[in-house]
Amino acid sequence: MTIITLTTDFGAADPFVGIMKGVIAGRAPMAHVIDLTHGIPPHDVLAGALVLRHAVPYFPHGTIHLAVVDPGVGSQRRALCVETPGALLVGPDNGLLSLAAASGEIRRIIHLTEEHFFLSPRSRTFHGRDVFAPISAALAAGTSVENLGSEVRDMQRLDLPPVVREAHALRGQVIYVDHFGNLVSNVSAADLATLAVHAPSIGVGSVHLRAVVNSWGLLEIAVREGSARDQLGAGVGAAVVIET
Amino acid sequence: MTIITLTTDFGAADPFVGIMKGVIAGRAPMAHVIDLTHGIPPHDVLAGALVLRHAVPYFPHGTIHLAVVDPGVGSQRRALCVETPGALLVGPDNGLLSLAAASGEIRRIIHLTEEHFFLSPRSRTFHGRDVFAPISAALAAGTSVENLGSEVRDMQRLDLPPVVREAHALRGQVIYVDHFGNLVSNVSAADLATLAVHAPSIGVGSVHLRAVVNSWGLLEIAVREGSARDQLGAGVGAAVVIET
Amino acid sequence: MTIITLTTDFGAADPFVGIMKGVIAGRAPMAHVIDLTHGIPPHDVLAGALVLRHAVPYFPHGTIHLAVVDPGVGSQRRALCVETPGALLVGPDNGLLSLAAASGEIRRIIHLTEEHFFLSPRSRTFHGRDVFAPISAALAAGTSVENLGSEVRDMQRLDLPPVVREAHALRGQVIYVDHFGNLVSNVSAADLATLAVHAPSIGVGSVHLRAVVNSWGLLEIAVREGSARDQLGAGVGAAVVIET
Repeated sequence: MTIITLTTDFGAADPFVGIMKGVIAGRAPMAHVIDLTHGIPPHDVLAGALVLRHAVPYFPHGTIHLAVVDPGVGSQRRALCVETPGALLVGPDNGLLSLAAASGEIRRIIHLTEEHFFLSPRSRTFHGRDVFAPISAALAAGTSVENLGSEVRDMQRLDLPPVVREAHALRGQVIYVDHFGNLVSNVSAADLATLAVHAPSIGVGSVHLRAVVNSWGLLEIAVREGSARDQLGAGVGAAVVIET
Repeated sequence: MTIITLTTDFGAADPFVGIMKGVIAGRAPMAHVIDLTHGIPPHDVLAGALVLRHAVPYFPHGTIHLAVVDPGVGSQRRALCVETPGALLVGPDNGLLSLAAASGEIRRIIHLTEEHFFLSPRSRTFHGRDVFAPISAALAAGTSVENLGSEVRDMQRLDLPPVVREAHALRGQVIYVDHFGNLVSNVSAADLATLAVHAPSIGVGSVHLRAVVNSWGLLEIAVREGSARDQLGAGVGAAVVIET
Repeated sequence: MTIITLTTDFGAADPFVGIMKGVIAGRAPMAHVIDLTHGIPPHDVLAGALVLRHAVPYFPHGTIHLAVVDPGVGSQRRALCVETPGALLVGPDNGLLSLAAASGEIRRIIHLTEEHFFLSPRSRTFHGRDVFAPISAALAAGTSVENLGSEVRDMQRLDLPPVVREAHALRGQVIYVDHFGNLVSNVSAADLATLAVHAPSIGVGSVHLRAVVNSWGLLEIAVREGSARDQLGAGVGAAVVIET
């Protein structure tokens, strides 16, 4: 039984995700569909890429990860399937798949050109339904990757902002804010290890903050039973400086 | 394996949908339940009916579509199962099922009166759990439609506002607003074809709008990587005029 | 086929729930996972406990209910599995499981100490992924409860506020507010029966309220096609007095 995960910015208010599942159910009835999240902020390709990177390692070998955060739908951007040693990533060529793919070896990148796998007619606005769902269903039903299009050598990539190492400090920034208002930075456990600082506590005004290495292996700023986002008024892009 | 889709205005905060799935799992363990959406605005029967109409065609033959947007729960409104050539629609008799049913031939309408299929005791406020989930599970488990109640000839219907054709214009209105703030009108691709205008671009003040035929085959007003709802301050009922 | 239900305060914006499902799918591929809700207000253990109590009876015998509302994650609070005659409850020892367990006989309480079932390394912040998902998967795959840790005699319990009986009145309070703005009180149908008052109607200013016994068997204050929460400005803790 093959797993297909879904990651989109479609939200929960509309039937878009349910319709994609209908298309998959019709073409790959035995596929096991798991929602990763549909709450990616609209058009936020970086947030989608981070979510995929940190979720993919927890799924069984051979899982198909379908992702649609696609502000360029209807333009000439390509549709891709990226094969890694453990997974298949399906989505638009806008960087969305690049962080998950970078964390493993890329076996091949297929430009999805075999349109007979798509729904017909194909809308200009909903390639999740018309392109990516039927392609993922075809993969789950046993179609080989190479039959879906032509191999290409490159894809769009996203660069995370770098962590800057200074004599007595690391300078990073907030790259993701979760549902609890926890501020996730780009500073990794490996970065912190170079400072020999473990789980530093941070006080800002009267707010007592916790800085922990979170479940993604990244430094995260949290408030116990509260929201660091709300209490600090900070969001994606805010500076995170660890001094020794 | 039979599919049951769920469409409600129950939202995601409460366990109502999960409880319905528990009832179904106990009575039809092999049914494959797919959420269409639970984000219909509370009591908005028209939005639910539109969602069903545009989702049903993407599901396999024989799918059971359970829908609950039910401001009249606890009153004398009837509970129905509507059989079409491709699907079974289960829900309250308030128009919710009527747009999906209208798009196909209606084979029969059953008033769900066989109460021994319901949960007992039956609450006044949660027929999703007590009536519609067990009825859908019975259908998925093989019970014939005619055993669930008595055939009736009519049901409540919803009328979409008409598109008005003038000498040099079409006058429609916004009937649905999606998660991205796209404004979906009642003007269809067929309506537009009579004007020989394809994907007109619309400028309103400094806002550049895109008008495209969307994935439902309807004219939709969108802002690239933005919200037409927010930028125009428009919602359901706003006039949409296409002039030639 | 064993069912695992999920109840958390993780929301829908992040991939946390999806990642838990990935862990379960890898270790118990045949388990049937059903979301109860992920919309428990952050850190609101009482709301989670109420949801579990009222949902558990609608699931088949042997269902595993995994719940994570866990403000104490990373502290010394214990992880538990509570066995009742009809279900297994898995989650933190903070009262979350106690209302569901109280409604049935508790067979045994296991302190989950067999760490070889956990993911390794184990994060400090995401025991849903690292502890509770793999434990639930082990149970679904057939591991016996007693192999997961050591039996203990007690667990943290939550007390609902009592309903106060006076000569001509019942004094209760709002304990839960649902998606529709309905105000759910701690006054049960049994409490009301002592007053011989059925479904009293309540007028507050110009607002006509309905008070009904809801699907949980509790007195609920509702506004037809409106929100009692918004119209009354009332929430959890508000007094509910029924006079005769």
